[in-house]
Amino acid sequence: MNKHGDTIASAVTNLDLHDIARTAKTYGAKSFYVVTPLSDQKKLVEKIVTHWATGAGAQYNPTRCEALTMIRVKDTLDEVKDDIAGQGFGYPMTVVTSAKQSSRGIRFKKFRNMLKGEGAYLLIFGTAWGLAEEVSDTADYLLEPIVGGTDYNHLSVRSAVAIILDRLIGMGNVR
Amino acid sequence: MNKHGDTIASAVTNLDLHDIARTAKTYGAKSFYVVTPLSDQKKLVEKIVTHWATGAGAQYNPTRCEALTMIRVKDTLDEVKDDIAGQGFGYPMTVVTSAKQSSRGIRFKKFRNMLKGEGAYLLIFGTAWGLAEEVSDTADYLLEPIVGGTDYNHLSVRSAVAIILDRLIGMGNVR
Repeated sequence: MNKHGDTIASAVTNLDLHDIARTAKTYGAKSFYVVTPLSDQKKLVEKIVTHWATGAGAQYNPTRCEALTMIRVKDTLDEVKDDIAGQGFGYPMTVVTSAKQSSRGIRFKKFRNMLKGEGAYLLIFGTAWGLAEEVSDTADYLLEPIVGGTDYNHLSVRSAVAIILDRLIGMGNVR
Repeated sequence: MNKHGDTIASAVTNLDLHDIARTAKTYGAKSFYVVTPLSDQKKLVEKIVTHWATGAGAQYNPTRCEALTMIRVKDTLDEVKDDIAGQGFGYPMTVVTSAKQSSRGIRFKKFRNMLKGEGAYLLIFGTAWGLAEEVSDTADYLLEPIVGGTDYNHLSVRSAVAIILDRLIGMGNVR
């Protein structure tokens, strides 16, 4: 959604690709899908990935290459689900993230336990002003929002991915 | 440090300012200091902060404004410590973060408990290829690295700040 709540196709941000790929790799996610129906945005993602995966970037920074080769670009969420199923993981359960509280929200602790079981999960993050309602309404699960102890909840998607993967998979035995 | 281990003054990245300020605000940090001796980099930071704090940016996105006004720019870490002391918090204990294991490293859980006591703490993050050794060697504490469950440990500084503040202050009772 945009600022006014209209459903839009948001632009891809270069650093979202880098940061989220590096976080996904750190926590052992199988893939990082970028979903956009815009052909110029798809070309942009492919150009960035190619630079770091095979171009001068791969030589300059091999660890960046390793992370960015996880990125796959798709038109729709349904294509992502088909792609995951096609790799032999079965159709994934979809889990939508949001900065807003919802009565449907499942707790991090519960989801952390669910991940120990069988089956694939597709965690869905939105950019701009968040995911359109049709995505949340059709998802299998909604994850509770991150609470930092203040009433300010405007993390970047890059930071939200990092915190959520750490809470779900991180090895730090903090609490 | 740069790729070769030389001590350098790294360039400031626009999104580091945005992401880290938003994370700091979310978790209730008192300030976010950017330390650089380079005058053109200091001017760049001030220009970005001014745009979002008082310019067109403040009107377009008030929550971004709220976060970016936390940013203060200093030449050296000593100036940061003086500034914190000058605000009546006393001289802070310094805590250096790193992606590398160290025998001096303190656990997240221990530091989380330390934060419940009196006194101010200054968490120090480096960009480029990490902080120079003289910074680690003279710090009061070294924090253990983030472990994600794989042997890949190349998070962006933006992601590392998000994960570390969440582990230290986040309200999620996950584990």
